[in-house]
Amino acid sequence: MTIPSPLGAPAGAHSAALAADMLDMGARGQAASRALAAASREARSKALLSMSETLLKHHSNLASANARDMEAARARGLSAAMLDRLELTRNRITAMAKGVADIAALPDPCGDVIAEWTRPNGLLIQRVRGPIGVIGIIYESRPNVTADAGAICVRSGNAAILRGGSESLHSSRAIAEALREGLRVAGLPEDAIQLVQTADRAAVGHMLAGLGGKLDILVPRGGRSLVERVQAEARVPVIGHLEGLCHTFIHEAADPDMAVAIAVNAKMRRVGICGAMETLLIDSKGLERLLPPIARALEAAGCELRGDERARSVHPMTPAVEADWSTEHLAPILSVAVVDGVDGAMRHIARYGSQHTDAIVTENPEIAELFLSTVDSAIVLHNASTQFADGGEFGMGAEIGIATSRIHARGPVGAEQLTIFKYVVRGRGQTRP
Amino acid sequence: MTIPSPLGAPAGAHSAALAADMLDMGARGQAASRALAAASREARSKALLSMSETLLKHHSNLASANARDMEAARARGLSAAMLDRLELTRNRITAMAKGVADIAALPDPCGDVIAEWTRPNGLLIQRVRGPIGVIGIIYESRPNVTADAGAICVRSGNAAILRGGSESLHSSRAIAEALREGLRVAGLPEDAIQLVQTADRAAVGHMLAGLGGKLDILVPRGGRSLVERVQAEARVPVIGHLEGLCHTFIHEAADPDMAVAIAVNAKMRRVGICGAMETLLIDSKGLERLLPPIARALEAAGCELRGDERARSVHPMTPAVEADWSTEHLAPILSVAVVDGVDGAMRHIARYGSQHTDAIVTENPEIAELFLSTVDSAIVLHNASTQFADGGEFGMGAEIGIATSRIHARGPVGAEQLTIFKYVVRGRGQTRP
Repeated sequence: MTIPSPLGAPAGAHSAALAADMLDMGARGQAASRALAAASREARSKALLSMSETLLKHHSNLASANARDMEAARARGLSAAMLDRLELTRNRITAMAKGVADIAALPDPCGDVIAEWTRPNGLLIQRVRGPIGVIGIIYESRPNVTADAGAICVRSGNAAILRGGSESLHSSRAIAEALREGLRVAGLPEDAIQLVQTADRAAVGHMLAGLGGKLDILVPRGGRSLVERVQAEARVPVIGHLEGLCHTFIHEAADPDMAVAIAVNAKMRRVGICGAMETLLIDSKGLERLLPPIARALEAAGCELRGDERARSVHPMTPAVEADWSTEHLAPILSVAVVDGVDGAMRHIARYGSQHTDAIVTENPEIAELFLSTVDSAIVLHNASTQFADGGEFGMGAEIGIATSRIHARGPVGAEQLTIFKYVVRGRGQTRP
Repeated sequence: MTIPSPLGAPAGAHSAALAADMLDMGARGQAASRALAAASREARSKALLSMSETLLKHHSNLASANARDMEAARARGLSAAMLDRLELTRNRITAMAKGVADIAALPDPCGDVIAEWTRPNGLLIQRVRGPIGVIGIIYESRPNVTADAGAICVRSGNAAILRGGSESLHSSRAIAEALREGLRVAGLPEDAIQLVQTADRAAVGHMLAGLGGKLDILVPRGGRSLVERVQAEARVPVIGHLEGLCHTFIHEAADPDMAVAIAVNAKMRRVGICGAMETLLIDSKGLERLLPPIARALEAAGCELRGDERARSVHPMTPAVEADWSTEHLAPILSVAVVDGVDGAMRHIARYGSQHTDAIVTENPEIAELFLSTVDSAIVLHNASTQFADGGEFGMGAEIGIATSRIHARGPVGAEQLTIFKYVVRGRGQTRP
């Protein structure tokens, strides 16, 4: 095959060069991750502060790189919302630098002794936290993810290999260069943060394949099609979630005012985040009393309701179709189903939920405990809004996403969740009988 | 395609039937796992005791099923060692039942609150342990793994889908039937333990593909080719290890007698287990003093030594070739390399090790700490034998294997490591500002 690439080189040579580049990134990442793991907590904190400073120092570089991305995006006719996500104003650059400095102040999880015990033979066994290694992060347009994700990896002693959206390539490159300068100044390897420098989608394929065994996990951050591709094709473990199909169940014994406040907040505070409620479940026993005030409040807040037959019997709304129960609207649209008690609610959630975040509103503590212990989601809440599904709200300081996997970590993924443990065993010459 | 299968049905129809059977096992496993997770700790303990009793009750069934496997194995000319692994004597059946009863007495990890904190807004956040879900275990000839693995899954609230070696199919089937009866008698779903009933290797392919998304993790237990296939082809996360290429580094400041005792035990106590030492690293500074007595003791215990040039300069032995440094001998053969100090040892381990278990022998505490914190293996030991790499020796009571993965769990995988956590959040009507 000798189809000429845009650069004039044969396509085969181009893809071989890309493959070699990507393998090289993996090897550099692994080497950097070892140096980062061997560094002290103080050295990692110092590097994060230095990274924050270099971001500020290079603010005009960042702004001009971003201007190039913005210009290209306008020429491609990107929506106002997309342009807004892409733009790096001076305030946003300052906020980004502050975010990195905030991460420098977070507790460093590496070296923590999680558990410790002594065996009858005198062996002291400790389970000690340490970095995972090399973390690949694939994300879409927002360029500030480059700084957030890079910083959280450094905080947890991991090397990051970042692949941002092609529309933010110049911005991300300027950010990554500033972060790497910050690492260098602080005496840590700049390859702890590497950015894929090409918009070629084949680069993602190499990351999914694991960069020759050097990539330890992948974190996709973006829309459904990106996450679906990563989950389907990755040859390395993936931390993330496909969708947040979050439910709030209003039990018969709910406080009606609390039910209204939680339902409106869970749906309407921000409709586009993964913790936004998508389906409201109402107990058939409290239906006439509970649903109408909630429905009116949601409609007053600008929400379209799509209800099943029983819901529509007490409040007029659009008829829901089967697909509504499994749709993450991410819009001011809410599916409303009437269920028979907590068992009906739990059956609905088991069938349609995405194991992300689900809530119950009730004043009955036994029913609440049953819901909390049975519903198998990353986050279950009693008498609180599903919009609390967020690392910051959990007090983790920063997160790289929310996980719905069945292993390693569920819920908000902060620095601690980007670690693994090993066993350190101290003896005095013990041998096994 | 209508190639007739040995059963006379067209191959396509046969493989479609197998695919449907396997998907059905996945669905049954998931349903059973939910019931098992919802059951109390006491119910799971009771079921394990019941499983132990039904194993004893059916000992003559087990013995006659095993006799069929033994007869077929003898006819196929299996080695004496293989026949010994396969045989279920009355004593072994009793020991197997006792093993299950011991697991009933282990702490049940599900429901443990691992961490708990209150946010400034009053939300109480708890990280609570629960089962992973459905665990696939693929193993080779030893039929007692059917009981061990099934029991440890029930203890941790997980459903097990077991695929044993074809040579132990009758034995495993009799064991699985006894365990299922035990579950039934105790009022838990028998599908919490399912055994793949066919010797068709395509069944393994279905497990590797994840049984329609119902299988949450895979645990391979067996030889290198099995583990390699599972790690290469699995579409679900794998917990296990490919090899245990364990090192013991004898530092210049080692106590010479302790060094001899640890080296002989680490290599020769049992040469076929994953925690057996495969490479001895000797500090060049203590070479003349430390190596000869260790070498003599190992040779006296029946070990063949393969050394590099510097090792051979102080004790005659077979010249080591490059492949020896990356060979898991699993035999009374030891590779011996001379390294320059702890840095040389850590470089050798980083290059050739399998991140399983590595040890240092030294009386110098700073050097020991450097080794323990830097060597990135599941288990690192100071002044103790690598043969302690075992769930029982760690006090976990039972294990399903040793993991060298970079996520979820490393080291011995006991009941606790077969769990994940979720967040339980308790509020009083909080909404997110």
